[in-house]
Amino acid sequence: MMNIEGGVTAPAGYRAAGVAAHIKGPASEKKDCALLVSDADAVVAGTFTTNILKAAPIQWTEGVCMRGRARAVFMNSGNANACTGAKGLEDAQATAERIAGGLDVPVTEVAVLSTGVIGVPLPMDRILDGAAGCLEALSASGSHDAALAIMTTDTVPKEMALDGGPVRIGAIAKGSGMIAPNMATMFCIITTDAAIEAGVLRNLLRECVRDSFNCICVDNDMSTSDAGLCFANGQAGLPVLTPGTADFEAFAEALRAVCVTMAKALVRDGEGASKLVEIRVEGAVSDEDAKTIARSIAQSQLCKTAFFGEDPNIGRLACAAGYAGVGFDVNDLGIWLDGVQVVRDGMPAAYEEEQAAAVMRQAEFAVRVAVGQGGGEAVFWTTDLGHDYVTINADYRT
Amino acid sequence: MMNIEGGVTAPAGYRAAGVAAHIKGPASEKKDCALLVSDADAVVAGTFTTNILKAAPIQWTEGVCMRGRARAVFMNSGNANACTGAKGLEDAQATAERIAGGLDVPVTEVAVLSTGVIGVPLPMDRILDGAAGCLEALSASGSHDAALAIMTTDTVPKEMALDGGPVRIGAIAKGSGMIAPNMATMFCIITTDAAIEAGVLRNLLRECVRDSFNCICVDNDMSTSDAGLCFANGQAGLPVLTPGTADFEAFAEALRAVCVTMAKALVRDGEGASKLVEIRVEGAVSDEDAKTIARSIAQSQLCKTAFFGEDPNIGRLACAAGYAGVGFDVNDLGIWLDGVQVVRDGMPAAYEEEQAAAVMRQAEFAVRVAVGQGGGEAVFWTTDLGHDYVTINADYRT
Repeated sequence: MMNIEGGVTAPAGYRAAGVAAHIKGPASEKKDCALLVSDADAVVAGTFTTNILKAAPIQWTEGVCMRGRARAVFMNSGNANACTGAKGLEDAQATAERIAGGLDVPVTEVAVLSTGVIGVPLPMDRILDGAAGCLEALSASGSHDAALAIMTTDTVPKEMALDGGPVRIGAIAKGSGMIAPNMATMFCIITTDAAIEAGVLRNLLRECVRDSFNCICVDNDMSTSDAGLCFANGQAGLPVLTPGTADFEAFAEALRAVCVTMAKALVRDGEGASKLVEIRVEGAVSDEDAKTIARSIAQSQLCKTAFFGEDPNIGRLACAAGYAGVGFDVNDLGIWLDGVQVVRDGMPAAYEEEQAAAVMRQAEFAVRVAVGQGGGEAVFWTTDLGHDYVTINADYRT
Repeated sequence: MMNIEGGVTAPAGYRAAGVAAHIKGPASEKKDCALLVSDADAVVAGTFTTNILKAAPIQWTEGVCMRGRARAVFMNSGNANACTGAKGLEDAQATAERIAGGLDVPVTEVAVLSTGVIGVPLPMDRILDGAAGCLEALSASGSHDAALAIMTTDTVPKEMALDGGPVRIGAIAKGSGMIAPNMATMFCIITTDAAIEAGVLRNLLRECVRDSFNCICVDNDMSTSDAGLCFANGQAGLPVLTPGTADFEAFAEALRAVCVTMAKALVRDGEGASKLVEIRVEGAVSDEDAKTIARSIAQSQLCKTAFFGEDPNIGRLACAAGYAGVGFDVNDLGIWLDGVQVVRDGMPAAYEEEQAAAVMRQAEFAVRVAVGQGGGEAVFWTTDLGHDYVTINADYRT
């Protein structure tokens, strides 16, 4: 398994494009429309926001993924087409129809995703211009343009590809705010030239998302528009992957690695974030309990401002573990900042303040929390909370 | 029912004091030890943090409240006596013993509460000095000194009293960070000269706390040291209040008013807060569902930064309602900023942006959310999230 160039167009049989269509405003020259196409029939699996205010495109694309076959996904940034009523659903469908017509594929096999401002109808003339521009610009090296076009407050495009030996996996993603630890709070589009059944891919994607995109936190908000899609078009020319085989396990491992890498990339580029902090909880009665404790620390505003201040305020870490709602014996509590143990048996350990502060001055470090003797463990990734987050979000729209 | 001066010493038979004992550091001249005493036997009810890392004084004081009788509560700021192991419990008890000895009352009737830094043993020599100083300084006009002595990051002392006709109710409180919407996340000491049974008072206090201190949010953290205590000493000389009577209902209404007023005072003085925002949800299937939606908005970092930015970003409000985990028909969703309807039938209503912005420029305003035709409703109070919160919390300890 090695990293390669090419993003979502690294696997065989995919083309992509990204163009500027002024969705972000008449004066914007930024790319804001993206298209990914599989040249051959492909299966697709998706995971979506659990917000009941699902944006219109999510409702459309859930239908596509339920049927399990797709040839393309069109995406725009700058407008989420959320809280837009019946008009929003019509617009999503009209966008899919434009792409379907251009590619000569069934409209039911075209996914659409939108991200950006909520409550404003899509500017359909510009969206259709963007769709036409993407259809013209499609190329086997178009991944990077597509990754650029889906950015919102992201500061860097997120793109990667793995060569897993026989098959390849590629991905692009966007998302740096509204990152809550519950279902794919971003866009992530994954492609592979492996052959796999839609139902098998769906289960595998769900597992991978559970341990990656569902374990990250920038703020505690969950968007109306989040989606993870995985296309598999079989163009590597290999047999269908079957659970239980070595080939399947290798593919699963690669897909999991892609999801974790992209999830961490989202956190690293979190709005206003200057640090990526790994929260590792072990010794809980169950993995679920461990995850609840990890989430509690990852979401704590007080822990996150302490990370920003590079202040080894161990009381806040212990406190957030304590209010997670999971029972444990406080006398068993241990906490480490990287290799420095700061809490032992529920009380401050013997350590030098400067050692702990040095760990926190790093751009990336780990908080390890042990809560007893059980086998349950979990990992979460979070950011610090600093002034830049406030600045970015206090006036996002103007 | 009218507001009067005197705080916790306004009801008959109470004395209080607040002194400086250098708990906040050798150079600090701030008051940091407080004592409240009932001169006659009194019943007491308490509500406490649900954090499993309960500070030692909380464990001691829960025992006092379980027995239901107390003559005094001693409080210190500057050190929470939390995560301090067996030594912490010994120190809490030794503090109670010093007060009990000074007052000549049973140690089992002396509550103790500590707030401040976590994980550092109490400086017992200074605590005992503070206890002695308080015993000497006790006075029937000592409420204000006590309110000052329990402040941590509070910028103003919180104190009030109501004359409810036959009986009086007084209160002091502290708390401006670590205000989470779950159990009394602060200190609030309430006194009354009404006569009431301990069990009846306990149930009533629990109800009042549910609708006041459990409905406020500054950040999403819950402290190890939070407590609400209510003393009732019967010194007004009236019959014991019995549920179902008009006198009881009048008392309950006054107690609820005290709790709501003090809860809002905590939010108004929330760390770094420049706004007090009331979140009112109605039309839910149950009050509990309404509360879940209100809490979701009150805790949303994106809504809170929009409040700070005075940006009527209605998408964030709708979005936070949508991910609360409560089912409702999106097409029924209505949102108002004070009198300005900004969302109707799940879509942006017809309104002038400037009208909505003008509402948000106020120091206090209300967000009203209607989610359908049910009778469930709830109110939450929250703050904005601005730079000052980050500045205060990025380096609290130094």
